[in-house]
Amino acid sequence: MSARLPRGFLFSACAAGIKPSGKPDLALALAPDGASAAAMFTRNQILAAPVIAGRENLRRGQGVVRALIVNAGNANCATGKQGLKATRSVCAGLARRIECQEYHVFPSSTGIIGVPLPVEKIHAALPGLISAAAEGDAAFDQFATAILTTDTHQKVAAQTITFNGIEVTLIGVAKGAGMIHPNMATMLVYLFTDLSASPRELQQLLKAAVEHSFNNISIDGDTSTNDTVLLLASGKSEVNFKSVRDEFQAALTKVCRSLAAQIVADGEGVQHVVRLVIEETRTRKEARQIARTIANSSLVKTAWAGADPNWGRILAAIGYSGISIKPERINIYLGEQQVCRHGAACPFDHEQAHRYMSEPVYEIRIVLGTGNAHLEFLTCDLTAEYVRVNAEYST
Amino acid sequence: MSARLPRGFLFSACAAGIKPSGKPDLALALAPDGASAAAMFTRNQILAAPVIAGRENLRRGQGVVRALIVNAGNANCATGKQGLKATRSVCAGLARRIECQEYHVFPSSTGIIGVPLPVEKIHAALPGLISAAAEGDAAFDQFATAILTTDTHQKVAAQTITFNGIEVTLIGVAKGAGMIHPNMATMLVYLFTDLSASPRELQQLLKAAVEHSFNNISIDGDTSTNDTVLLLASGKSEVNFKSVRDEFQAALTKVCRSLAAQIVADGEGVQHVVRLVIEETRTRKEARQIARTIANSSLVKTAWAGADPNWGRILAAIGYSGISIKPERINIYLGEQQVCRHGAACPFDHEQAHRYMSEPVYEIRIVLGTGNAHLEFLTCDLTAEYVRVNAEYST
Repeated sequence: MSARLPRGFLFSACAAGIKPSGKPDLALALAPDGASAAAMFTRNQILAAPVIAGRENLRRGQGVVRALIVNAGNANCATGKQGLKATRSVCAGLARRIECQEYHVFPSSTGIIGVPLPVEKIHAALPGLISAAAEGDAAFDQFATAILTTDTHQKVAAQTITFNGIEVTLIGVAKGAGMIHPNMATMLVYLFTDLSASPRELQQLLKAAVEHSFNNISIDGDTSTNDTVLLLASGKSEVNFKSVRDEFQAALTKVCRSLAAQIVADGEGVQHVVRLVIEETRTRKEARQIARTIANSSLVKTAWAGADPNWGRILAAIGYSGISIKPERINIYLGEQQVCRHGAACPFDHEQAHRYMSEPVYEIRIVLGTGNAHLEFLTCDLTAEYVRVNAEYST
Repeated sequence: MSARLPRGFLFSACAAGIKPSGKPDLALALAPDGASAAAMFTRNQILAAPVIAGRENLRRGQGVVRALIVNAGNANCATGKQGLKATRSVCAGLARRIECQEYHVFPSSTGIIGVPLPVEKIHAALPGLISAAAEGDAAFDQFATAILTTDTHQKVAAQTITFNGIEVTLIGVAKGAGMIHPNMATMLVYLFTDLSASPRELQQLLKAAVEHSFNNISIDGDTSTNDTVLLLASGKSEVNFKSVRDEFQAALTKVCRSLAAQIVADGEGVQHVVRLVIEETRTRKEARQIARTIANSSLVKTAWAGADPNWGRILAAIGYSGISIKPERINIYLGEQQVCRHGAACPFDHEQAHRYMSEPVYEIRIVLGTGNAHLEFLTCDLTAEYVRVNAEYST
């Protein structure tokens, strides 16, 4: 895998004692010569302290990042002014040790809400974490593992493009939006590349990639307080953004889509991943709102859990999505089979539909007949296992 | 109970063979001398045929109703033009037999979506149904039972007010929004009174009562295609609306609130009814949107299933409700105990909170600190039993 790791980054991870389980929970990525950065954050109005500090540091550091520090096991959210002070203390401590400005450190946290961040444990772990930072697969693998919470496995995707015989490498790593016992879903995504690009150029690339990936997935409709997507570019390939713009954009979008799909597939209690293909809406935004309404309907999602071709629930969800529709133009397909024609029942083979919906991944296509826009959206079923995991009494 | 039945109405019910179980599934209410009517319907854009026909008949009949015919076991929704024709055929058949205009018949249906209404079975049952129509408890009891689907019991509430020694009686009956195997939730509510009022006066009364009752409940956030609330006034008390306006409004709201509470408590798989008290918002509408977002969060609802005082999930839901908030002003209370102060954690007795949330009904109070409006909203937890009931493969 080392061929796929971008130049200019060092990784490490350790168990700092934040997770009660004693598993690795602190991850570090260093860019010794600095990296350009772009980031996107949750739209939740309740913001975790690292989200506030991370956004502020990027602004103060003019989009240059020297280090990324991520802890799992504690979200440092709803922790008030003390929480913000804690995040800043971690950034300052790391900055001092690697001799950079505090605002060149980017912090992330995921885990339980409303519990003070154990800052001392993090400070104590920093020296070992820094000295262990290294290039190569083993170190990256440790990083990818330490950021996980209830995820059942690592989520990694990579792409390489070539310009005049020079390779530009991109690798992304994610922590899933599986709902976390005992607290929030959080999606953390870190993308590393050795492309040479300015923070502003990276922001354009990232915005477009997120629009076609992470913005089109939903597990349970809940939006975390900590969601963060960060793109870092070391410039070490010496290939400039302008030379490979379209190709790199495609590679970035591909990596983000792969990570998004991995996140949905690893959602808690998920038995079926459903690809909603929404067609013939007036706008892409309308298509997304319809997809989200379907993906957030408990009635639809429980029918999926039972592989029940109950298209009536989907039709009803479209009806209350808030998007103006023409019921008599709506067609719904389960894979190849049409199950609803012109907004009404049509004959279909129920046993075949049930078998199709028993597959781990399948497609439902919904044609609205009101325009020319379309969208693909990934979501999943709602199972008794999801309820079990999230209903456990934890305090 | 007969003292509480309003004058001017006859009731009956029978098993017409629409429900595969063979249980009673056809209910009739007659107002031999006519009744003023007001109705409110689902806002879902996918409308069942009886909703379309019912609204149309009220308009054509200028708000006078002679008969109400309700079938359970088939929603007559997503059935196209044939579905509308079927409903009209039922109305016409009944009108012919009781010698009134078709537009003085009000139809309702609840049950499976996308299956043709078995019109012949209904026509065949009409003569017996009409001849059995009677005043009194036994007949009303049959009516209240035949409209049920997965409800575990009848939902009835009554109020009597007095004017100059004359009693004005109001009784309401509902079919719950428990999610129906294998299809939709539907809320049907019928309110009967012997008040004397015009359709326009009734509409004002009904709108205000629904605003403070059925609009403030949620089981799973799914909105049915068939929801209907109908208020019928026979005038037989000879007490005029204008004489008892405020008192009657209070009685009507009380009956609607009681029925709304019964509906939530009988939701499928419900173990806990939660009363959300939203305070200090800018408007009542904002309070409702915050309550609905909390009530539709799978993460919040599964925490409730486990009696887990996980206030962080509630805070996060408020954050993505779309309402502009001031996080540092938010206070959250579980009964008497404060669990979140100024948007951050505060010390509380977790065991006591867990015990409180183990009660079948309890209260969560959320103070936003941005205005003077408030709202009470009833909702429930999301249990593995809900998933089981709704995931069963049915076709």
